Amino acid sequence: MQGGRTRVFALLGDPVAHSLSPAIQNAAFRVLGLDAVYVPLRCVPAHVPVLMAALAEAGGGGNVTVPHKHLAATALTRPSERVRALGTCNTFWWDGSALTGESTDVEGVQAALRRLEVDLETWLVIGTGGSARAVAEAARLAGARLAVSSRDPGRAAAFLAWAGGLGIEIAGADDATLVINATPLGMKEGDPVPSRAETTPRAVAALDLVYQRGETPWVRLQREAGRRAADGREVLLAQGAAALSRWFPKQTPPLDVMRAALHAALD
Amino acid sequence: MQGGRTRVFALLGDPVAHSLSPAIQNAAFRVLGLDAVYVPLRCVPAHVPVLMAALAEAGGGGNVTVPHKHLAATALTRPSERVRALGTCNTFWWDGSALTGESTDVEGVQAALRRLEVDLETWLVIGTGGSARAVAEAARLAGARLAVSSRDPGRAAAFLAWAGGLGIEIAGADDATLVINATPLGMKEGDPVPSRAETTPRAVAALDLVYQRGETPWVRLQREAGRRAADGREVLLAQGAAALSRWFPKQTPPLDVMRAALHAALD
Repeated sequence: MQGGRTRVFALLGDPVAHSLSPAIQNAAFRVLGLDAVYVPLRCVPAHVPVLMAALAEAGGGGNVTVPHKHLAATALTRPSERVRALGTCNTFWWDGSALTGESTDVEGVQAALRRLEVDLETWLVIGTGGSARAVAEAARLAGARLAVSSRDPGRAAAFLAWAGGLGIEIAGADDATLVINATPLGMKEGDPVPSRAETTPRAVAALDLVYQRGETPWVRLQREAGRRAADGREVLLAQGAAALSRWFPKQTPPLDVMRAALHAALD
Repeated sequence: MQGGRTRVFALLGDPVAHSLSPAIQNAAFRVLGLDAVYVPLRCVPAHVPVLMAALAEAGGGGNVTVPHKHLAATALTRPSERVRALGTCNTFWWDGSALTGESTDVEGVQAALRRLEVDLETWLVIGTGGSARAVAEAARLAGARLAVSSRDPGRAAAFLAWAGGLGIEIAGADDATLVINATPLGMKEGDPVPSRAETTPRAVAALDLVYQRGETPWVRLQREAGRRAADGREVLLAQGAAALSRWFPKQTPPLDVMRAALHAALD
């Protein structure tokens, strides 16, 4: 039960009602015995900087999701190196003297790929937004080559130029052995699938950053094409654990409890 | 357990850690089966207007306490008549199209006096701030005469001029049959008492708007002088019920549950 000293962590985004982060984090807070609560807060861009500052200054913090992750990066007084490099922030807190933040998307992608047990050389990322940038950074750290797919050729070119600037070797989509959906397609009923299996003939694995009750249509499609595939739940879980370890540096994130809360909400 | 659709209500003030509103409201939300949570949020004045707007627009709301109650009144798009008259706001929410708010201090004072079973003609209010204004309004509604006590003669004169403008008959402190402490004195260890019993020789009852674990020193002093006395817990409770009925118009505030939560936290 929350009292006057409860530390407040919020998810800032729009929409937020679908998010499982409250379920995951509150389960973790409870099992760790922390006097803290995690709440959803749908909000407009104009309110984001003050909400971040107010929550952090009060001893809490939070996460930021679509469409505010870029804006959040600019609102930080003391961004991490990765936030500076990627231009997005999804986790914020007070570091003792300033509003600081991190982008844990890269850690999320890395954890999900470890779980898929794939170690692949050529990745195709679908999408060019903040999540796609995190995928590119994970590719760079894995030493993988990168291709991009976007409905907007201009954005694809700009993304590849940016990725090339990081020192990533660029590949063609046909060569991709791993495909990652970094678009929001699949979150809403009736969305088109982000790609057809036949457009990536050499792929043996697929990671969807979207998650859904059951599985996403794209994950089903990829599995039907004989590929190892996972949806975004392990990404979300790894991001949640990474966030919790920033907010409560002395705690070890209770991954099993968090996974159980996630699956209870999704299955 | 909070999820993505949980409605968030916050207490905005500084300090807030001592507040029992989270305990009271969360107990009420739980017994009513509401998917809502009430959290404390210590904040600076500059953040108050955005926090109010963001919480309300997201489908929640909250309360405002010292020192932000005057500022909160100015942040409302659609203040109630009472907020306009008193210049303070302690409860806010979204009314479907705008940020609206109320001052429930008057209802709190009225409820506490009903519980003291006093019907007195001449009230002395100690203090000249927002709570004192609420006391004045309650005096006006009760048809009582009003005196004021303040360490600052200029503020006392301004307060009486304001109260006179409401149509309240002004009295001398010596005549007071009811004394109300509307200062924060008694919240902190080592505070001086707001008044000595001998300064109000005709008083038969006393209401302290401050509450404390056990009883406040001033309540004890007044009781020792043979007066019926109550601290601020019933005021807080009535305010909390009034707020809940604004946020959830279809609900009946579960007063017994709220009182039990309050006493559990205080005794």
